[in-house]
Amino acid sequence: MQITFLGTSSGIPTHQRNVSSVALQLPQRAEMWLFDCGEGTQHQLLRSQLKLSNLTRIFITHMHGDHTFGLMGLLASAGLRTTLQAVDIYGPPELTEYLRGMERTTRTHTSFPITIHRIQPGVIYEDAEYRVTCGPLKHRIPAFGYRVDEKDRPGSFKVEKAKELGIPSGPLYGRLKRGETITLPDGRSFDGKDFCEPPEKGRSMVYCTDTMYTETAVALAQNADVLIHEATYAVEDEELAVRGMHSTTQMAARTAREANVRQLILTHFSPRYAPGNPVTPADLLAEAQRLFPHTQMAFDFLTHEIPRRKSE
Amino acid sequence: MQITFLGTSSGIPTHQRNVSSVALQLPQRAEMWLFDCGEGTQHQLLRSQLKLSNLTRIFITHMHGDHTFGLMGLLASAGLRTTLQAVDIYGPPELTEYLRGMERTTRTHTSFPITIHRIQPGVIYEDAEYRVTCGPLKHRIPAFGYRVDEKDRPGSFKVEKAKELGIPSGPLYGRLKRGETITLPDGRSFDGKDFCEPPEKGRSMVYCTDTMYTETAVALAQNADVLIHEATYAVEDEELAVRGMHSTTQMAARTAREANVRQLILTHFSPRYAPGNPVTPADLLAEAQRLFPHTQMAFDFLTHEIPRRKSE
Repeated sequence: MQITFLGTSSGIPTHQRNVSSVALQLPQRAEMWLFDCGEGTQHQLLRSQLKLSNLTRIFITHMHGDHTFGLMGLLASAGLRTTLQAVDIYGPPELTEYLRGMERTTRTHTSFPITIHRIQPGVIYEDAEYRVTCGPLKHRIPAFGYRVDEKDRPGSFKVEKAKELGIPSGPLYGRLKRGETITLPDGRSFDGKDFCEPPEKGRSMVYCTDTMYTETAVALAQNADVLIHEATYAVEDEELAVRGMHSTTQMAARTAREANVRQLILTHFSPRYAPGNPVTPADLLAEAQRLFPHTQMAFDFLTHEIPRRKSE
Repeated sequence: MQITFLGTSSGIPTHQRNVSSVALQLPQRAEMWLFDCGEGTQHQLLRSQLKLSNLTRIFITHMHGDHTFGLMGLLASAGLRTTLQAVDIYGPPELTEYLRGMERTTRTHTSFPITIHRIQPGVIYEDAEYRVTCGPLKHRIPAFGYRVDEKDRPGSFKVEKAKELGIPSGPLYGRLKRGETITLPDGRSFDGKDFCEPPEKGRSMVYCTDTMYTETAVALAQNADVLIHEATYAVEDEELAVRGMHSTTQMAARTAREANVRQLILTHFSPRYAPGNPVTPADLLAEAQRLFPHTQMAFDFLTHEIPRRKSE
């Protein structure tokens, strides 16, 4: 699972940062999922190594324009540029009226079907390898955080060991892979557990924006490998954060700590902290790290590979 | 009057060209008008010397997304970035539903009023210095070309000459400026025409996209200083042009010639003619110049100052 930040500014694009979007590349299946889609996301993709043709799902946290205004243009361009088969979009109830209204008034006809899913807290998508859950956040309008869990994968089968022991290949290997105990005609007995590498633990990523500190975000992010959390404001601007129902660096770090995540990545910074201003991104990072050391700052085109870990 | 191209690609953005938008700066009144507003227009403004805070009017030719998807983001950012007083937007009937629908579903509240004007062929805006006219184009959906005419300005008053001749300043100067004939108490008579420099002829700019060749575009562009016309396709791809109801270079050049304009600027090029492909922008230019020599190709951030000319 590889995360690429396509936009890390809150509200408006700046010279260095575009408005919100994060791409998640899924290993082994050439799929890309997007989280939010601010204006210019398709332009950012064009400047990246990511392929619009791999897009299959888009998850929208809330309807504010800096998270949604790039959606229709991206879909329209995907229709002209690629041979996409279908796109599924998940988001708040207003998403349907928003997209269908734009399609109708601008006569946009994509070559592939777009299915819009109205989300509610809980599991919103699941297949053999991944599960996506969403939970409510605390913002001025309904907003949702997303969690992607990769499912644990069984460890690989020690085929050489089985051969050496003279276990005949075929259905018996399947039973060993599933962890069963088998008995051969010669009376020897083998435990499947001895023939499997330890299972590979599934990885997890949580995306929380826009939101103030909220216990539902802590619950959603519990033990995640990576928590991407907004940090629109510095601690000294907490009043602005509360008024706009955004997070300070400290609120984001508190969420990471209480959720016991492995890594916190901050994003969605107010343009007021651009380098050269009294408070800079380096200051924001220091503020968060005081509370949660495993923090880093996102920037546009930052790519983060979530490492695999063996089950403990 | 200074024209700046902010996007010159048709349909989708490319590495070199964004989708359609043209800015017109009006001299002496710190105003900027925009023609079309494809996705990323606000980003292009950010990279230019133009000021979003000078925006007063936006003219939309037709509803297709590559001309409209940047509108709401630009307005929302203008509300956050500037102290704009008001913006007037002109376009086809669907523009109201489009913008109001996006405002409603994304909870976008700009700090300034947005007035949407539903256009019909004829004069759509007029003040003491400018007149804007629109005329129907020929595209797959209703589309309109725009013409901006700067009004002629009276030549400056030769105040030194009047003083030398002993004409007392005051109301008499006003009458001379208006071209009247005055008689002094001493019996001398003066013709106002002898005290005024020749009037400065107003300039004109016409913007036609998206369209096939059509006589209504020729009528709209009659004797204009600058005609900006789409040339989506090369002559060899005329079949594609006709199918999409776009222009070839030749159709654009024919319009310029029949309208007797001074200068043609081509824009809205299909991505298929990017440098390195079999047909390049240089080929498109050559095709048009065979029919209309005073042709140039637009590129993103090209600035063109329309020169003043004295009345003939």
